[in-house]
Amino acid sequence: MKGAVLYGPRDVRFEERPEPSIVEPTDAIIRLSATCICGSDLWPYRGLNPITEPTPMGHEYCGVVEDVGRRVTSIKKGQFVIGSFFASDNTCPHCRSGFQTSCEHRALVGGAQAPLLRVPLADGTLVATREVPSAHLFPSLLALSDVMGTGWFAADAANVKPGATVAVVGDGAVGLLGVLSAKQMGAERIIAMSRHESRQKLARAFGATDIVTERGDEGVARIKELTKGVGADSVLECVGTKQSMAQAIGITRPGGSVGYVGVPHGVELDGADLFYRHVRLLGGPAPVRRYLPDLIDRVLNGQMEPGRVFDLTLPLHQVAEGYRAMDERRAIKTLLHLQGD
Amino acid sequence: MKGAVLYGPRDVRFEERPEPSIVEPTDAIIRLSATCICGSDLWPYRGLNPITEPTPMGHEYCGVVEDVGRRVTSIKKGQFVIGSFFASDNTCPHCRSGFQTSCEHRALVGGAQAPLLRVPLADGTLVATREVPSAHLFPSLLALSDVMGTGWFAADAANVKPGATVAVVGDGAVGLLGVLSAKQMGAERIIAMSRHESRQKLARAFGATDIVTERGDEGVARIKELTKGVGADSVLECVGTKQSMAQAIGITRPGGSVGYVGVPHGVELDGADLFYRHVRLLGGPAPVRRYLPDLIDRVLNGQMEPGRVFDLTLPLHQVAEGYRAMDERRAIKTLLHLQGD
Repeated sequence: MKGAVLYGPRDVRFEERPEPSIVEPTDAIIRLSATCICGSDLWPYRGLNPITEPTPMGHEYCGVVEDVGRRVTSIKKGQFVIGSFFASDNTCPHCRSGFQTSCEHRALVGGAQAPLLRVPLADGTLVATREVPSAHLFPSLLALSDVMGTGWFAADAANVKPGATVAVVGDGAVGLLGVLSAKQMGAERIIAMSRHESRQKLARAFGATDIVTERGDEGVARIKELTKGVGADSVLECVGTKQSMAQAIGITRPGGSVGYVGVPHGVELDGADLFYRHVRLLGGPAPVRRYLPDLIDRVLNGQMEPGRVFDLTLPLHQVAEGYRAMDERRAIKTLLHLQGD
Repeated sequence: MKGAVLYGPRDVRFEERPEPSIVEPTDAIIRLSATCICGSDLWPYRGLNPITEPTPMGHEYCGVVEDVGRRVTSIKKGQFVIGSFFASDNTCPHCRSGFQTSCEHRALVGGAQAPLLRVPLADGTLVATREVPSAHLFPSLLALSDVMGTGWFAADAANVKPGATVAVVGDGAVGLLGVLSAKQMGAERIIAMSRHESRQKLARAFGATDIVTERGDEGVARIKELTKGVGADSVLECVGTKQSMAQAIGITRPGGSVGYVGVPHGVELDGADLFYRHVRLLGGPAPVRRYLPDLIDRVLNGQMEPGRVFDLTLPLHQVAEGYRAMDERRAIKTLLHLQGD
């Protein structure tokens, strides 16, 4: 089969790779119905995370089970499944408390920008639908695998409640789906921080009530003004830089919460500052597995359409163009379809 | 009247001071039934917070209302009252959300190591009991003013739930009352970190089920061992140093919470480390006012006796000896009685 392999900065190739096979008896092999490129794939693509050897890319997936190992009991061949970017056993104490991305046996899923994928710990990681869904739902179901689950965790970690005032820092795919998550959770006011027209438009479509284009201190001042000096109840930090975190903390009301899902790069927090601000913090790799059953229901019954975040669709063999479009911010997120690949 | 005034490092004097009087129409004057010395008074006493002028000391108080300003409506002369170390209006958005120590009009209460005290924003700050309680309850009611309210906030911020495994970092008065708070909230297992026999004993009396004497990495390892590698659900950080915070974060399970009430001195947090640990953080000056009605009930109906934390009782005129005893760790906390002063 052919799939995407990253060789170095901005050098992603569509090339022949061995088909995955069962390695551990708890594995499953999935034939992907759709796959995509994640904002986090851009870190190594841009050379900000070093690449030491050619690396198969992609960790978002949904599709039909092609094969299972002999110790897989609940997942069956022919089922349509969605799983998290982290495999987890879903039985250890951390999984049972809902933090499957801290599973004692967690393993990264990799190489999903290809027709076939090996998923470890299949019983713990994968959630099957009752039947194979209609193809028009694939983009929204695919989004649950990471980007939507991550936006949802940001909102959950930020303690979004019905009637809340929510602010979202970051207008990438995760931030936009954070807006959608806050809306689904019943937030009354959702302030999206964005200065890009197409992203503002999607934010509004997902439920944003206000758009703030200012950043840094000006952005903080603008949000304070919009909230009568109080600040937001819940803030979703979806970038991961020092500046974006400072902004998120600066716009949170005392007793409010920041949910942060942007992988922190160079973020140092001052304990005394946090103390006097009374800001609650929770972040981390999103425990997508916890949310999957609920989120799948919401997609299947038409309550939400997170797949709208894909604004570029390409065949898998044009994966390199998909990376370029996202790198140059011409696309928010690229869906890769597998017909003919 | 005579009260405690700090002149410089280890120089606290019991000397003549003007009696307080109504300054703002929202003030009340309280005749104190008991007062005490706070662990935080030791920061300036030890010269770690600079003193620029002679400073009347003390911020923990309970007593009988002697006078009220003309705009005070709910608090009456003759009532027995307890208030927080921070005055608050209890009507602003931050107060209404339960974070009265972030009140838009907050003001520090000071000079409580004296027979009479002026309390600003009396209606918002003070909580009156139905009748003047028996004198044997004064120590426990006095403790609610800060130290017990702070231990309670640590446990609440650390999200202590019935059945939880809780660890407490710090065996000062706040840490010990954090143990009591966790017990009151229904924690099943309470691990106190202490290497002082008298404090261990009180921790056990307050509900600690385990004592860990190790510190730093060894302390973290010991608690991991006690919790089968999982870590504690809730951790109360009651010290405020870089080391104690690292220890608190290190013993928290993924998805668990740290409530920190030790005023941070030189605490820097690494964003990426917190992210991958999935640790929830909330701290700050305890919003004691939120908890007072509930905590007063618990004392009056005999559910708890936080006043046991006072292991040294002196007449107010021996206040200097009270500071010395706490500074030298001969006493956990000093109660000052006002008979004859």
